[in-house]
Amino acid sequence: MELLKQRILADGIIASDSVLKVDSFLNHQIDVALMDALAEESLKIFADKPVDKVLTIESSGIAVACFVAQRLGVPLVFAKKAESINLEGDSYSTRVESYTHRRIFDVIVSKKYLKTGEHIIIIDDFLANACALDGLIEIAEEAGALIEGIGIVIEKGFQRGGTTLRKRGYPLASLAIIESMNAETGEIVFR
Amino acid sequence: MELLKQRILADGIIASDSVLKVDSFLNHQIDVALMDALAEESLKIFADKPVDKVLTIESSGIAVACFVAQRLGVPLVFAKKAESINLEGDSYSTRVESYTHRRIFDVIVSKKYLKTGEHIIIIDDFLANACALDGLIEIAEEAGALIEGIGIVIEKGFQRGGTTLRKRGYPLASLAIIESMNAETGEIVFR
Repeated sequence: MELLKQRILADGIIASDSVLKVDSFLNHQIDVALMDALAEESLKIFADKPVDKVLTIESSGIAVACFVAQRLGVPLVFAKKAESINLEGDSYSTRVESYTHRRIFDVIVSKKYLKTGEHIIIIDDFLANACALDGLIEIAEEAGALIEGIGIVIEKGFQRGGTTLRKRGYPLASLAIIESMNAETGEIVFR
Repeated sequence: MELLKQRILADGIIASDSVLKVDSFLNHQIDVALMDALAEESLKIFADKPVDKVLTIESSGIAVACFVAQRLGVPLVFAKKAESINLEGDSYSTRVESYTHRRIFDVIVSKKYLKTGEHIIIIDDFLANACALDGLIEIAEEAGALIEGIGIVIEKGFQRGGTTLRKRGYPLASLAIIESMNAETGEIVFR
């Protein structure tokens, strides 16, 4: 998506050859108009799919997922990253490793909000090694939900997540795929 | 706001005399159409205020804050609850105690996204003892931002947060204020 690529080139900061900071518009400060445009573009890719629900994981996926859900007129469910006393005990859960935070955490979705036979679209802001996404997929499949699409804002194509998921046959679409980036020259090459 | 009160009565679950679960529409599964209606209602209260930015805290505040920011045409900034290697070191931070999670955590906002003289509206889903909100206010004031409004979806009026903030003179508006609730009878009384 051209608008997104231009924004990454303008405002993305290459912190290292593997870390791209887009916290000025995607995951700390959020350009909500851009999020809605990303949602519109994602839905073009998954047009004519039946969708009962959008699934994401806290926190950075929530904004774009909100607009996807709004455009589809369906609820959004966001997976929680830690046990909360306000969550029902009856939940799907799995453990994932965070690349960003370098720690292991639990991903939890209440069984009340994900059911067998529901058609879902999974949305997230970033795809690198797909640790969080693998967790969401595992939970969705455990629930018996049908994954109609996986929409990602930025995929780091040089990390293994996207390749692995495509090989496994998942309907993955990333709005921008970074082939490589160079922290010294500041160059970003898109696929 | 009548629509919200009806929804709380229909779908809220009183887990104890102090814990109300609204995870079917507000903080786990999200009714995005309702969130947009809540955003519209909040903005009626803060009409004709200048607003440069909306500030919230991850994660449950993000959805409603997204729609507030969209309607105002301004960016949303969400405070992070823990240090991340992808955040710039140059941040405002404070420590707050989570009532829900019964732990202490850091609240962090990058200095790049909150500046002296910026007019902001703070949005959050719940107000009980105002621990998280106090943290956001402290950060906003440290940044020199001007708090034009504080919009809350559900205030638990029987806990001290709202009363204290109003006494301190903050422009606080809650769309539903629960005066009392009874876990045995299931009764909820609104203020």
